[in-house]
Amino acid sequence: MSGAVLGLDVGATKTLGVAVGPDGRVLARERVPTGRGAAGVVAAVAAVVDALAAAVPAAAPRVGLGVPGLVDPVAGTVAHAVNLGVDGVPLPLRALVQERLGRPVALANDVNAAALGATALVPGGRADLAYLSIGTGLAAGLVLGGSLRAGAHGAAGEVGHVPVDPYGAPCPCGQRGCLETVASGAALAAAWPVAPGEPPAAALFAAAAAGDAAAVAVRDRFAGGVAAAVRLLCLTADVDAVVLGGGVAHTGEPLRVAVAAALAAQAAGSPFLASLRLPERLVLVPGGYPVAAVGAALLAAGAAGAAGAVGAAGAVGAGVTGGPLAPAEVPASDIPGAAAAPVPLPRTV
Amino acid sequence: MSGAVLGLDVGATKTLGVAVGPDGRVLARERVPTGRGAAGVVAAVAAVVDALAAAVPAAAPRVGLGVPGLVDPVAGTVAHAVNLGVDGVPLPLRALVQERLGRPVALANDVNAAALGATALVPGGRADLAYLSIGTGLAAGLVLGGSLRAGAHGAAGEVGHVPVDPYGAPCPCGQRGCLETVASGAALAAAWPVAPGEPPAAALFAAAAAGDAAAVAVRDRFAGGVAAAVRLLCLTADVDAVVLGGGVAHTGEPLRVAVAAALAAQAAGSPFLASLRLPERLVLVPGGYPVAAVGAALLAAGAAGAAGAVGAAGAVGAGVTGGPLAPAEVPASDIPGAAAAPVPLPRTV
Repeated sequence: MSGAVLGLDVGATKTLGVAVGPDGRVLARERVPTGRGAAGVVAAVAAVVDALAAAVPAAAPRVGLGVPGLVDPVAGTVAHAVNLGVDGVPLPLRALVQERLGRPVALANDVNAAALGATALVPGGRADLAYLSIGTGLAAGLVLGGSLRAGAHGAAGEVGHVPVDPYGAPCPCGQRGCLETVASGAALAAAWPVAPGEPPAAALFAAAAAGDAAAVAVRDRFAGGVAAAVRLLCLTADVDAVVLGGGVAHTGEPLRVAVAAALAAQAAGSPFLASLRLPERLVLVPGGYPVAAVGAALLAAGAAGAAGAVGAAGAVGAGVTGGPLAPAEVPASDIPGAAAAPVPLPRTV
Repeated sequence: MSGAVLGLDVGATKTLGVAVGPDGRVLARERVPTGRGAAGVVAAVAAVVDALAAAVPAAAPRVGLGVPGLVDPVAGTVAHAVNLGVDGVPLPLRALVQERLGRPVALANDVNAAALGATALVPGGRADLAYLSIGTGLAAGLVLGGSLRAGAHGAAGEVGHVPVDPYGAPCPCGQRGCLETVASGAALAAAWPVAPGEPPAAALFAAAAAGDAAAVAVRDRFAGGVAAAVRLLCLTADVDAVVLGGGVAHTGEPLRVAVAAALAAQAAGSPFLASLRLPERLVLVPGGYPVAAVGAALLAAGAAGAAGAVGAAGAVGAGVTGGPLAPAEVPASDIPGAAAAPVPLPRTV
């Protein structure tokens, strides 16, 4: 389809790509395992792009990539992407992929890409949100007034490393009591050990729903930590919506309910906090919705500067020109993964 | 002087107004006690505007007001301004002042106004900052990428009510262990009692500098709380500068040094935090600089839509149109309060 754009979410275990049509629909998806190191990443990206280009031949040449690690969007480099096996000196990923594909490439941190993708999930033009990624770690991406806020030094949204308990657990970052030590997949897995291969969050929430008192306690402490992150984002940036995503969000509605309950409990003694109506700001990424890949496609559309390439004209420029980003509503048929074959995201937490 | 604009900082005890020239210089200042209630506020504003207009007859008609409380800039109302004696139903302050003065009025929360004013204090065009007001309470105003960020619900920058210690002191907001219970003038006054009329912060920092071990401990705990607020702002919004203001900031350079030391101590075990170089982002409002009144004048210039009314053209539109705000550098002669007679801000904490 003409006007379609390609976006890829480059993860540690798999690289997932989508072609997004001008109406915001996901037209095609492709997934391959991510190889290790620079060569492995470039090969996975090339395989996915080749497959998508074959499926949607009229797609725009520019490709958007969401990648873990510290991205310098000007230099086109990625640093500290330990999960990709490319730690060390910053990797010139944009140049490497452009050379391999012969296509222009736009690069963003994967959480920031997901924040752009999440604008399609909030109703009625509210392109003012934090995307809270609850994966192995905890981090947020911010879209403020329609523009991606990467921060003055690329560190916006690093809420996982805000300490909230002087007597809390040591954090891998070197501080103590960071939100990530409570509200992350790693913290949850440590607090609720399961058999290898079983997703800890699903097991925990199922046990809590079945009335297991220990599971209820672990779930509520975890949900309290996520709620603290939501509160923090709303008391600092005052975003209109907080979109819960990442591996743990595959738990689905029970996660949203638990976090909403924790927010209500935190506000029980505080008319000030209650007046902010934080539970109403929660949105959940629907299961199987490729939020980071869609956001990478929006990024590519913006970088291309081709007005109207994706959804509303406002979507163009997102995160690149700083122009307004109108949320391209996701057709309901797309959300659980319609159009092409739905690819469930991995249930890692 | 032609092109000058008027801005007022309406405080609980006094209303301070300035006329700001097109080069960013403060041309005139005027201060009167603030009366109680709506009539008292309007009378104080009128007295200051009349005096400034007499001193700078060619000033633009529009007046900017920074006021405490929850400001609805669209409706022109102020709510919860307990300090002004106007709690209860939202006060239509803009309409009241416009009727009394026959001039158009732009309204902002006083901390947000100060954040705009603070853009004149950071070097080299870094109009990306948080203004951290350490007064009786603790709150921040955000200018992100040149635009005031009031938040989706007017609550951006309410970092004083982020809990950081589950075993901390009860906060007036109804939560426990909020940053404000450690890093505010009220917390400092409670921890370091002084004779009536003596400013607690000055007394504390003087005693600590003289080697009083108890004072050192109280100072360092306070500075640690301020540092936690700075860290929070940088890990969430990743602002390029954090400007320390409010009554406690009259302590001056010793405050900046103590907060920088606390930031360095917090980063001692965390290469991640150290890499963010937070101590280097600290800026102090110079003693006597009327930051909120200057910001209110910038707001008026923006609301007027008259390009070039204040300093760089970029300053127009700040916080109103969302356009870029280039910092109008403050001439060094202005900073300690040159031009007109300097009016020291009150030493309340």
